[in-house]
Amino acid sequence: MTPAPGSLLATMFQEARTFSHWQARPVPETLVEAAFELACLGPTSGNCQPMRLVLVRSPAAKERLLPCVSSGNYEKVRTAPVTAIVAYDREFFEFLPRLYPHTDARGWFTTNPALVEETGLRNSSLQGAYFILALRAQGLDCGPMSGFDADKVDAAFFREQRYRTNFLLNIGHGDRDRLRPRLPRLGFDEVARWE
Amino acid sequence: MTPAPGSLLATMFQEARTFSHWQARPVPETLVEAAFELACLGPTSGNCQPMRLVLVRSPAAKERLLPCVSSGNYEKVRTAPVTAIVAYDREFFEFLPRLYPHTDARGWFTTNPALVEETGLRNSSLQGAYFILALRAQGLDCGPMSGFDADKVDAAFFREQRYRTNFLLNIGHGDRDRLRPRLPRLGFDEVARWE
Repeated sequence: MTPAPGSLLATMFQEARTFSHWQARPVPETLVEAAFELACLGPTSGNCQPMRLVLVRSPAAKERLLPCVSSGNYEKVRTAPVTAIVAYDREFFEFLPRLYPHTDARGWFTTNPALVEETGLRNSSLQGAYFILALRAQGLDCGPMSGFDADKVDAAFFREQRYRTNFLLNIGHGDRDRLRPRLPRLGFDEVARWE
Repeated sequence: MTPAPGSLLATMFQEARTFSHWQARPVPETLVEAAFELACLGPTSGNCQPMRLVLVRSPAAKERLLPCVSSGNYEKVRTAPVTAIVAYDREFFEFLPRLYPHTDARGWFTTNPALVEETGLRNSSLQGAYFILALRAQGLDCGPMSGFDADKVDAAFFREQRYRTNFLLNIGHGDRDRLRPRLPRLGFDEVARWE
């Protein structure tokens, strides 16, 4: 199930790729839930954990999602065994008395919607990244996407304004034969400096 | 250097913690740079890679950073061997002709500052999360923080409005004896649903 330990970093980073084409192999619920159990341990500011997930796999749910995605992502979403809607809860702060009990962290947010939005986007992105790497550690492949209409996804999957879609994430076993070469990365010296 | 492979997931997730107290052990540049080389491989939307890093370790640079952080984070930052300023470049799109050459991705951003801001925050957070897990994979400990004045950090470390601080990240060898119990996590059923 979990890849050979010696190759785990390769599985999570060096050999991992963003997939657009998928093998016709099912994705066991247990692997996705095991990945979540790892990912939820990653740090968030004030332990706020704003990420919420809708794991779309039924044909009926896919039918609701497909009209919301860009033409370039349509076939990717249609053929992926699972497409996760990675969203954040704009009322995440209501959980803080339980998640961060030693101070009134809830009060930082109740009258500051701009801080709620920034904190939700930042921390659900952190959690989404932990989830991507944890899914890979379970031997699954990922295809994250920003090409979609977030208002449409929100309307199709969330009854309340409370939830905001951050990004979409195809999950499955990727088809390596259809990968193109990896795109270039910025080097350390272009991105970072020691001071 | 790298921990025993069998325990790598434990090192990156289960046993990893957010540290506030640090051992007096130096952080080799090579480990941080090796972590970056892993982290830069993680996916970003349109391969945009907006994250920029200032790795603060000299006493002079620490002196500039300390007045920008909240009182609760002052000692953590003062005693950490390295504090990374995880920022994003608001002109990240100027690199897209090189990073995403097969379409005019630059044009998506040139007249849409709100999209620049959202894309910068989302993707520098994803990259920051990859960096946290990659640092842990190198045997280093992390302490990410949102308690600081981003405008002050920007003014102290970036000459141009071009760069925006996202979060701060202490890096070192943590003092396990001073950890408190891990804070609670939301369960899968509270956060996710299959559809």
